Amino acid sequence: MNIGNELLEGKTLNTNSQWLGEKVSSVGCQIEYQITVKDEENSIVSGLNYCLQDKPDYLLVTGGLGPTNDDVTRNVLFNYLETNSEFDYEYWKVLKGKYQRMGKQISESIKSQAIVPKAGEVISNPKGSARGLKFVKRDTIIFVMPGVPIELKHMFLQSILPTIIKKVESPILSRTLRTTGITESVLFDYIETHSKNNKNKIGYYPSVYGVDIKVSNKNQEEINLFIDMMYETFGNEIYGENDTSMERVVVESCIKNRKKIAVAESCTGGLIGDRITNISGCSEIFTGGLIVYSNNSKVKILGLDNKGLDEFGAVSKYTARKMAENVKTMFNSSFGLSVTGIAGPNGGTKEKPVGLVYIGLASDKNTIVEKYNFGKDRELNKIKTSQAALQILRKGLLDE
Amino acid sequence: MNIGNELLEGKTLNTNSQWLGEKVSSVGCQIEYQITVKDEENSIVSGLNYCLQDKPDYLLVTGGLGPTNDDVTRNVLFNYLETNSEFDYEYWKVLKGKYQRMGKQISESIKSQAIVPKAGEVISNPKGSARGLKFVKRDTIIFVMPGVPIELKHMFLQSILPTIIKKVESPILSRTLRTTGITESVLFDYIETHSKNNKNKIGYYPSVYGVDIKVSNKNQEEINLFIDMMYETFGNEIYGENDTSMERVVVESCIKNRKKIAVAESCTGGLIGDRITNISGCSEIFTGGLIVYSNNSKVKILGLDNKGLDEFGAVSKYTARKMAENVKTMFNSSFGLSVTGIAGPNGGTKEKPVGLVYIGLASDKNTIVEKYNFGKDRELNKIKTSQAALQILRKGLLDE
Repeated sequence: MNIGNELLEGKTLNTNSQWLGEKVSSVGCQIEYQITVKDEENSIVSGLNYCLQDKPDYLLVTGGLGPTNDDVTRNVLFNYLETNSEFDYEYWKVLKGKYQRMGKQISESIKSQAIVPKAGEVISNPKGSARGLKFVKRDTIIFVMPGVPIELKHMFLQSILPTIIKKVESPILSRTLRTTGITESVLFDYIETHSKNNKNKIGYYPSVYGVDIKVSNKNQEEINLFIDMMYETFGNEIYGENDTSMERVVVESCIKNRKKIAVAESCTGGLIGDRITNISGCSEIFTGGLIVYSNNSKVKILGLDNKGLDEFGAVSKYTARKMAENVKTMFNSSFGLSVTGIAGPNGGTKEKPVGLVYIGLASDKNTIVEKYNFGKDRELNKIKTSQAALQILRKGLLDE
Repeated sequence: MNIGNELLEGKTLNTNSQWLGEKVSSVGCQIEYQITVKDEENSIVSGLNYCLQDKPDYLLVTGGLGPTNDDVTRNVLFNYLETNSEFDYEYWKVLKGKYQRMGKQISESIKSQAIVPKAGEVISNPKGSARGLKFVKRDTIIFVMPGVPIELKHMFLQSILPTIIKKVESPILSRTLRTTGITESVLFDYIETHSKNNKNKIGYYPSVYGVDIKVSNKNQEEINLFIDMMYETFGNEIYGENDTSMERVVVESCIKNRKKIAVAESCTGGLIGDRITNISGCSEIFTGGLIVYSNNSKVKILGLDNKGLDEFGAVSKYTARKMAENVKTMFNSSFGLSVTGIAGPNGGTKEKPVGLVYIGLASDKNTIVEKYNFGKDRELNKIKTSQAALQILRKGLLDE
């Protein structure tokens, strides 16, 4: 049950219910219903009645625990579950200390975050100040989580999923392969042909980063045989497993191989640097980069020559090569990674259509340049370009 | 009501319910509940009972009309609504013609798409072959649409929304203020005190970018008075209205004022450049930037001096100032925007704790530096830093 007018009004996309559905299904549980209700007493009560009618083992509730609307949710829940509340002075002290350290004044409305039920438990929130709640109503355990996705995810993985897993009798095991640069239909056709005589359940999850293949089974051996087959055929396109990301794989590989990287970004505008620096520890291997968005900066800052730019154009194999080589030299790194392209939605010509991208990688051995077209949607083009660039860097690291 | 196991299992994100919620709210209707049920008779019936209990004017149903699962949905609906079915030979001819023209053989399972209710209407599908359905059950009009988003959207806009709008007597209007740099609780306390005697409905939508305040009312004048009051008090923190973003506001303001910008990013690693370059047309005003992640690159590429870095440290007012001024000069821009900080989760000291950030803005007039602490979560710190930096730039543009 998701609480929040913003969900019903379409202001916020309900990613929480998808995320929870995926997590819960992956350990062998089924979601019977999902319901979204308003931040209002009648709605919440009606939703609770509906969700509890068939006596599920668990009810997951999200939202309505922020400082401005939690009074409603909290009061309704406490009344519905027939518990009194009390004030948690210890937690109030913690909250006050937190605000003090940030140099902010604590508002009175934050006080409600320290109100706890007498008959119920509090679940810690490693990413925020609104804690979760746990109740038991007849045969159902009710977990209440904040609606902010990052807080919900950490709380669920840390404190709730482990409790649920414990009760699942024969859990479903799974492994997920993360691929990029290969289409869903190619993977589908291959897998349909080569993986028939086992009980593996295969899920396909395409996204802008590539296609994830999730294989589930109660038998670990069958899963592993499938995964081995996939590595044999698609080893180049599989960049990692389960919850890792391309940037994490690349940064960890650089650290392991003691390689430093620098980037020169045109059409991605800083996105590759942003992704690399999302990984803690990257400062060991990421020396920095240049965002050379104008021809002028390509010449003045990155040292390309006007003549070459005029002859071949800013979006060309020549420019990608020079950018990669020059940024490697400037930052004294083991690899120079470059991208130049036409991100869209406008700006193309017949020879150089919108979406065209060149990616360059300079190493101590050589420089390679690859050509792509990632389409006219600006943001999608940028993300796909960054993913392909990091993939080229990942393969370059393997070749060392 | 959305029908589909793939939604409950988290395989598919339920974008239909967000899209419908947004469309329906924008014409002044309210979604009372949203519910997702399985492709099974019991689930569908239970969902229908729940949705119809309070006699809504309309019930929108999506999904379960495709060729592989429509028998269940259709049979359950026809039974529930107590109608017989008949075969639409005309439509079957149309379908057969369609397949013939595509050079494909028509499968027997497509036949079910020509089954229609005796007591109910069919809604045409301009983008596919599964037509929609319309029923009346007591006071409620029920619309059933296919789950494929593109089919649903066209059908809804063409045949369903016009019917709904006709019946809305006094639509609900709204405006949303986007704020940053101010907490939800401060806004809440102020609004609770100063906005009591009107019928405005206030919604608070906090995110990592700031807090959005949505005010809804049937009376435009009351909305505008509230908005005017908010601008008077929080004018500095309001960066835009409705669907805009900080980066769009900044880029549009630069274009209007013919100002060029360059960025020097340390802890954000390219995120500010990435956000600016998400806006089409930014190449007019964004000359580029430097990602100076190491001390060495701050000296070698950006021209800071080792002595100053040693004396004040890489995360200091001094460094932010120098970075902003030097990047402005290097890129020959009107503004140089810089950030340097400790993004976390490790790397702090007592004097310089994790989360500490300095943001600098150099203009033709002067250089300002602001100090913040955005906490220990690396990704959140980066996003909040980028938002604060763009906000400082936005204010700098206003001062010109």
